[in-house]
Amino acid sequence: MGFSVTPWEVKGEVDYDRLIKEFGVEKINEEVLNSLKKHTKDIHFMLRRKVFFAHRDLKFILNEYEKGNKFYLYTGRAPSGPVHIGHLLPWIFTKWLQDKFDVELWFQFPDEEKFLFKDNLTFDDTEKYLQENMLDVIALGFDPKKTKFLIDTKNSNIMYKEACKVAKKITFSQVKSSFGLNEQSNIGEIFYTSMQTVPAFLPSVLKNKKIPCLIPHAVDQDPHFRLTRDILPKLGHYKPASIQCVFLPPLTGIHGKMSASDESSAIYTTDSPEVITKKINKYAFSGGQATIEEHRKKGGNPDIDVSYQWLRMFFEPDDKKLEKIYNDYKSGKLLTGELKAILIEKVTSFLKEHQKKRELAKKQVSKFLI
Amino acid sequence: MGFSVTPWEVKGEVDYDRLIKEFGVEKINEEVLNSLKKHTKDIHFMLRRKVFFAHRDLKFILNEYEKGNKFYLYTGRAPSGPVHIGHLLPWIFTKWLQDKFDVELWFQFPDEEKFLFKDNLTFDDTEKYLQENMLDVIALGFDPKKTKFLIDTKNSNIMYKEACKVAKKITFSQVKSSFGLNEQSNIGEIFYTSMQTVPAFLPSVLKNKKIPCLIPHAVDQDPHFRLTRDILPKLGHYKPASIQCVFLPPLTGIHGKMSASDESSAIYTTDSPEVITKKINKYAFSGGQATIEEHRKKGGNPDIDVSYQWLRMFFEPDDKKLEKIYNDYKSGKLLTGELKAILIEKVTSFLKEHQKKRELAKKQVSKFLI
Repeated sequence: MGFSVTPWEVKGEVDYDRLIKEFGVEKINEEVLNSLKKHTKDIHFMLRRKVFFAHRDLKFILNEYEKGNKFYLYTGRAPSGPVHIGHLLPWIFTKWLQDKFDVELWFQFPDEEKFLFKDNLTFDDTEKYLQENMLDVIALGFDPKKTKFLIDTKNSNIMYKEACKVAKKITFSQVKSSFGLNEQSNIGEIFYTSMQTVPAFLPSVLKNKKIPCLIPHAVDQDPHFRLTRDILPKLGHYKPASIQCVFLPPLTGIHGKMSASDESSAIYTTDSPEVITKKINKYAFSGGQATIEEHRKKGGNPDIDVSYQWLRMFFEPDDKKLEKIYNDYKSGKLLTGELKAILIEKVTSFLKEHQKKRELAKKQVSKFLI
Repeated sequence: MGFSVTPWEVKGEVDYDRLIKEFGVEKINEEVLNSLKKHTKDIHFMLRRKVFFAHRDLKFILNEYEKGNKFYLYTGRAPSGPVHIGHLLPWIFTKWLQDKFDVELWFQFPDEEKFLFKDNLTFDDTEKYLQENMLDVIALGFDPKKTKFLIDTKNSNIMYKEACKVAKKITFSQVKSSFGLNEQSNIGEIFYTSMQTVPAFLPSVLKNKKIPCLIPHAVDQDPHFRLTRDILPKLGHYKPASIQCVFLPPLTGIHGKMSASDESSAIYTTDSPEVITKKINKYAFSGGQATIEEHRKKGGNPDIDVSYQWLRMFFEPDDKKLEKIYNDYKSGKLLTGELKAILIEKVTSFLKEHQKKRELAKKQVSKFLI
């Protein structure tokens, strides 16, 4: 079974159980869910359905919280293209955490990251995407009083010095093995992980007290934060905790990761109803049979059907409705076209609302800047 | 003949002619001096006496100047200890250039550099030295209207993004060979040269036009700027020009470089007359003979006498007076103790004045900050 998961690339069919072992993260089990529920009352469907499936040190975060030592959330987005719905997934969950625990969110926009890693990307490009991407984050409804945008090239005055403290503790040979860099890597790529580490302790520096940090993120970013966890105690800070999700699959197939640079794999937050309809009908990989007759007889396979998986992971929070869809598709009662129609309706109405809020967000950006 | 000159270390007896060949810099010859003189009217004794002995692209700088395209000056100081008189040497010359050409000076304080390269140095240390070192620079009389202090960790907002543009053009294998780094080097050391490159083009970015840059510096910094010269045309900027000086020798001997961390090798700008007297009498390496009788008979050797060299390079601008000292010492007429007394008087009166201005500088710092 060949697969690889790094911060830059996800290849092959990911075996998440094996990843848990390899990365050394912990599964989110019933015990963890019960501890969470004490505070959140309900359990987000992304937790119930194992979309968020792994964590590091979540118990520590909850213990501190119970002692009155509130954590803050840290997540982010490297602005290198338009936002697609795969990006929204962990942010929606992050918003839920912010609301349930009433905590601060530090949202990083490392606008130099993809500039350094992609030959043809300029800072003019990243600036354009930054402005667009911020709207998508704001549109999700984060509390501007409790949410701070940290933009690497614009907030360097508070970040670069802290990044140097991190960098002093990391050798080239460490980043080489963690991130697959080599002698031909540029010296910005080599330094970059220091900047990604900063938001995991910056609030502690600014407020001059140790504040626990919880990072919701897709599992491919774990190598960054594994290194972060090694370094931070050496600088007198807590190791950051994390809560990790799987990838929303690309339209075109159940494996891998949605890519903003592949139009057929992604639905962007600015896609029109027509485009959404066309993309899903044309590209969404189906678990159905070749003909209607065969489908009625043998039934479909929701486990490999992208439309079903999107409903499960993102667009149908209601467990009962989802179960009915699952059973109907599996039995052959629900046809592929009908399943796609359900998804199209859900995505369209979600994005219609999102696009409205995205317009309103244009006037709110300054409230989130540091 | 074993010697090595890198930005981090100067070892052995430096053969400056060989260095000129190895580094690929140009000697400052009569032709260059004449071109300079057209604008400066007189020629600074550090030029006459080959203390500033080499350059890159000085003709380009003067050509552009003649066309009305003024250059700016860039030099700097990594705050990692107290300033000694060896540091002042190139800055005094820089001040002369600023006055003669009426140009801007961008003075960089890369306060992260030594933090990254020295295990035990903290940012608290560098901050303390930064505050002290700025006073020494201001005390030399730079025009606050034309002089800007660029402090890496405090001005990162305008520097880090530009440093990333530089970093994208430099591979690890390039810095490895230029600076003697290796796989165990920390990733901040590896990135650092990008930050040192920034002042060589930052004014061009801020003013949105191509402005020539002239860097007066001690020859050991050439590897940084050689790399800078490779990179800048790729970013649409001029290659920076440079004018390079030899090192003021340490008190203890004619070879190598004065070190701020070796008390016996350096006179600090804050040393009292008593300390100055004691250090010169005790440590200044002498070209004299073992006994007065022998000295009177055989004469001394001013070429290896540190007191004489300090007068030549820094403290006795008057060629005639210097020549008399040279001849008298060589003939044995002037004794080592008498030569040292001349130096002590010069250094003491220079530093007395400097310390006065250094006190006044405390109220001027803010005028130099960006």
